[in-house]
Amino acid sequence: MTDILSAQMAFLIEADKLKSVSRATSLCDGSRCENSGEHSWHIALYAMVLAEHAHRPVNIDRVIKMLLLHDLVEIDAGDTPIHGDHDPAAMEAIEQAAADRIFGLLPPNQAAEFRALWDEFEAAETDDAIFAKSVDRVQPVVANLETGGGTWPEFNVSAAQLETRVGVKVRRGAPMLWQHLRSRIDAWFDAR
Amino acid sequence: MTDILSAQMAFLIEADKLKSVSRATSLCDGSRCENSGEHSWHIALYAMVLAEHAHRPVNIDRVIKMLLLHDLVEIDAGDTPIHGDHDPAAMEAIEQAAADRIFGLLPPNQAAEFRALWDEFEAAETDDAIFAKSVDRVQPVVANLETGGGTWPEFNVSAAQLETRVGVKVRRGAPMLWQHLRSRIDAWFDAR
Repeated sequence: MTDILSAQMAFLIEADKLKSVSRATSLCDGSRCENSGEHSWHIALYAMVLAEHAHRPVNIDRVIKMLLLHDLVEIDAGDTPIHGDHDPAAMEAIEQAAADRIFGLLPPNQAAEFRALWDEFEAAETDDAIFAKSVDRVQPVVANLETGGGTWPEFNVSAAQLETRVGVKVRRGAPMLWQHLRSRIDAWFDAR
Repeated sequence: MTDILSAQMAFLIEADKLKSVSRATSLCDGSRCENSGEHSWHIALYAMVLAEHAHRPVNIDRVIKMLLLHDLVEIDAGDTPIHGDHDPAAMEAIEQAAADRIFGLLPPNQAAEFRALWDEFEAAETDDAIFAKSVDRVQPVVANLETGGGTWPEFNVSAAQLETRVGVKVRRGAPMLWQHLRSRIDAWFDAR
């Protein structure tokens, strides 16, 4: 039992570092950039609140667990802004190595269970993962709308790019949600 | 549906403010104080990892939801350091008013459901709430141990006070957890 608890504590202390990983998106009041720890809390809450709008039935408890874990690899890999330049293959290799290291801190059974949830999220093929991804994608859009466009001017994002990079993924898991934001998004791009 | 989504979005945007509520506890690397948003993520992860050590069987999915919600009232009430001075009755009145306002942003059914979970957490009588409270109490202890005592010197905390204010509550929900930390805690106080 001591060995199990020691491994679990090492994992939880390591996880603390996610609070120091900075994201491109800012808080809704524009005061500073969000970090990946508080982002993970916020999207777990998004999922809990918005579960009824999932396109297909989901197990919301599994979705929440996925979202609590989904960004831990950023402790090693950092956050990759969706509108920034990056090499997807190189990033995937870095994140896989990070998952090996970080989930590997846990006792073996739990490491395997958490890793399977993270793999499922990354693959974005199950209904639970598809909804989790849509929530992860939509929260920065809301923050951008709350802060006069947020990161969109900085990354020179067009309405078409937002649709391809974000809208498609949000609509896949929660079409009503994207439709609800559509008028605010259109108004922002029309006013440019 | 539009009304429901508008209310849910207003709640989620309001919830963003929890990321700006500062706590007494610092990050495990001592770089800055933790905020209540990232704290909420971390203890939800604590619960997910440590569920097997609950003193009595818990529904871990309900525990996680409780923990995601438990600090939202701090948007209005601020964080009350456990080792600081405060008037419990006055603080309870402020938190009740905060719960009315913040959960009241949600559609009525969801507001009632979330409020019931928060009330259950606060009452600390069910097995789920008792375990949730023990996790909420133990995470700052770990952060303090990681940062050479953390807030204990500042608040002039004795070993006996830590036992009364924190240890009793951690042991109530997860006795093995407190036992596991005991030697590190004793070593810190013995070295003073």
